[in-house]
Amino acid sequence: MSNYYLRPAALTLIVLVLGCTNQSDTDLGATVARKVILIIGDGMDDQQITIARNYLVGSQGQLSMDTMPFRGAVQVQAVAEDDPSKPVYVADSANSATTMAGGVLTSRGRVGTTAQTDEDIVTIMELASAAGMGTGIVTTASITDATPASFIAHINQRYCQRSIDMVRMNETFPQFSTDCSRDYKANGGRGSISEQIAASQVNIILGGGADHFNDFIEGSFEITVLEAARSNGFEVIWNRSELTKLPNNKKIMGLFSPGTMPVKYRGVDGGEARLIAREAGQVKWPEPFICEANPDFENLPTLAEMARVALDHLDNHAGFMLMIESASIDKESHYRRPCGHIGELSQLNDAVRIALDYGESHPETLILVTADHGSAAHIISQTSSLAPQNYATPGHFARVLTPEGSIMGINYASNDSPLWDEHSGVQVPIFASGPGANDLPTFIRQADIFKISASHLGLLDTGLRK
Amino acid sequence: MSNYYLRPAALTLIVLVLGCTNQSDTDLGATVARKVILIIGDGMDDQQITIARNYLVGSQGQLSMDTMPFRGAVQVQAVAEDDPSKPVYVADSANSATTMAGGVLTSRGRVGTTAQTDEDIVTIMELASAAGMGTGIVTTASITDATPASFIAHINQRYCQRSIDMVRMNETFPQFSTDCSRDYKANGGRGSISEQIAASQVNIILGGGADHFNDFIEGSFEITVLEAARSNGFEVIWNRSELTKLPNNKKIMGLFSPGTMPVKYRGVDGGEARLIAREAGQVKWPEPFICEANPDFENLPTLAEMARVALDHLDNHAGFMLMIESASIDKESHYRRPCGHIGELSQLNDAVRIALDYGESHPETLILVTADHGSAAHIISQTSSLAPQNYATPGHFARVLTPEGSIMGINYASNDSPLWDEHSGVQVPIFASGPGANDLPTFIRQADIFKISASHLGLLDTGLRK
Repeated sequence: MSNYYLRPAALTLIVLVLGCTNQSDTDLGATVARKVILIIGDGMDDQQITIARNYLVGSQGQLSMDTMPFRGAVQVQAVAEDDPSKPVYVADSANSATTMAGGVLTSRGRVGTTAQTDEDIVTIMELASAAGMGTGIVTTASITDATPASFIAHINQRYCQRSIDMVRMNETFPQFSTDCSRDYKANGGRGSISEQIAASQVNIILGGGADHFNDFIEGSFEITVLEAARSNGFEVIWNRSELTKLPNNKKIMGLFSPGTMPVKYRGVDGGEARLIAREAGQVKWPEPFICEANPDFENLPTLAEMARVALDHLDNHAGFMLMIESASIDKESHYRRPCGHIGELSQLNDAVRIALDYGESHPETLILVTADHGSAAHIISQTSSLAPQNYATPGHFARVLTPEGSIMGINYASNDSPLWDEHSGVQVPIFASGPGANDLPTFIRQADIFKISASHLGLLDTGLRK
Repeated sequence: MSNYYLRPAALTLIVLVLGCTNQSDTDLGATVARKVILIIGDGMDDQQITIARNYLVGSQGQLSMDTMPFRGAVQVQAVAEDDPSKPVYVADSANSATTMAGGVLTSRGRVGTTAQTDEDIVTIMELASAAGMGTGIVTTASITDATPASFIAHINQRYCQRSIDMVRMNETFPQFSTDCSRDYKANGGRGSISEQIAASQVNIILGGGADHFNDFIEGSFEITVLEAARSNGFEVIWNRSELTKLPNNKKIMGLFSPGTMPVKYRGVDGGEARLIAREAGQVKWPEPFICEANPDFENLPTLAEMARVALDHLDNHAGFMLMIESASIDKESHYRRPCGHIGELSQLNDAVRIALDYGESHPETLILVTADHGSAAHIISQTSSLAPQNYATPGHFARVLTPEGSIMGINYASNDSPLWDEHSGVQVPIFASGPGANDLPTFIRQADIFKISASHLGLLDTGLRK
């Protein structure tokens, strides 16, 4: 265990950990390794699940997550940076992942740090590492993106992925009130997110984001972040083929694309949501389109393949914490591309299948599937039910022709930006299987996901279970 | 049992019923009365629940439904009128209530009849009556509105509430492809919805819609629909005070307002969602508002009071089927009035409390709480996260100041009609408590709600339970 974790806040929690490891709140003995697989569909609210189900398996089909024995709802949690006693009803991926990873509420944009006071929040990955368990992160985003970062790193601004971003951000995004300069290593901080990941104890981390590891370590003109990761024991891999021959005794960092990994599907002929056109005052409904394979996706590892490799790599540990993120449900919804988020949810669903299969043969495994926040996509009629009066959505609209031969109307109307739609503050689903899953409360908050995971791993006694 | 029910389709099902009544799929003996309370929040999707929770009990609180031991998701079901083999992804209250009441899919606008073939669909209320059980309907809508009507009546168009509507509809709403003329009594049909309710066997029916009972029965110039109801054994009541002294040996029809019952809350100073204004190109965010009591609601019975009276009235039957609808979650969302749907969900939540209390002392009661379809209301940031670039929703937007001191942004942007927003095709939640609740699958379809209810009442053996 490196000194990295031995900050005062972490120490307090680790003492708690040691006091709890023998406790058993399930019927599994203390000698059995405890395992948690937390699968996060970024932006995967009930709209997204319904859209994907309708397209992928039809209105009579069911997804893998639909077969899980427990389903509940999770209140998304964020607080105001200028007054953390006040709730903010719409979250982003950074603050919500921080809360799921560490059990503490924070403000939007923050990664593993508290609102206003900017203190580090110890994450479940750090607790698991400290207790000698395995830890893993799998994502279709850059591994430095908000969700994976919040399980490992501590910084006040999610966009500070590289040390150069810590300067550049204030010029590029003046609307973000925080800057990252206090986290410069030169100022006694931990550095950028990529530098923190390179210095981390995570056993396996797979995803995109190779571009974030080329810079020199802050203050150095000789050592890149990638070289620092290697010095810290990471075997770095770049291709799907390398996934089949991982050294079991090394930490693994897989970087399979320069940034976010390309998604599985795209709309045929560039099909995506557009503003409604009118001709002579009459609504001109957009042409329906179907989804097709995205050629950029072809040679990449799938989320399910990465999940399986991570499980294999962690299987020999005395318990583990694995977080698997399907990142582009949210990103493609921002970009108003229905086939993008449908294909990404299909990837998540395949990863759920891998996790459930693992759970079958490893019944000590608690599997949680949830989302970090809602997104803008909204199923409405394929033409307005008021169409004779010639009304249509004022937002971006797509008509997707499903394999069962019907047209599904998808609306994105949270703002009038030509580029980007926003999140929703809706509660999100949680699915669970494994020990204690059926005893979970049917309504929880995001901080409870930390408590449930930590409790299952024997890292914390929370009394949350009924 | 009147001949009313003895149409061939109904007969087949009734034979099944008699074959099943001794069957026990729970641990309750056959001698114990079986009871189902089905509570439908019209339009109550996860957005609506989150909006109401944030306002009513705060982001750290929980609603009564949040305490129920089972939570699942329900796929909303509709099919195309011109090709019933094709799914339609956005439902209305008529077709979805028909499917929950009768277990058969149909097209939008239809009440208790099949798509295209226009055959009557036997409802759970009719099955329960035929088996000698009590039946009840409580709603904040007109009792002739789509949801209550679909549990009792059979007609091809929900808007044919009075016999005069059966003519008028084709002139007023040419966009609806069906007309009701084939359901004229003169044409061998059952007549309008109000006439069918007046002729029904339901033991207690409470709500609004007095205006729909003043007309003469079709073909008569002497007998009003109300008089026909009285001739059929209904005691008709008009005021909250009359609810306290109901004759136990009569059928009860309560008509507490001319149409839809007024809602509990309204926005202070006329606060509701409006289109975003811009001044000199800059977004002018609307003033936040709070909710206040609606004076029109003051002397009306609450949904919870009506629910309690209905339970008292049905308690002496050998089992019962009671449907309780909170209708204006949807209606107020159509009108883009956040305080309207928040107050209505508060009413539903109080009715859930009454049902749960009844279930405590009558453990043979299965309580189901669900929605018929999603609605347009969507929580987004109170200002755009892209605000410095001056983007805002293109829809109608409200900023609601919650009791916990934060501002919740609510967006309605499914179309650009100045009057009315639309439904969403999102899956909806289901909550359950009582015998077998924890054994329900976590993902079902609307037709399953009929099967679950009928199975619990011993009216049908479906094998749906796990």
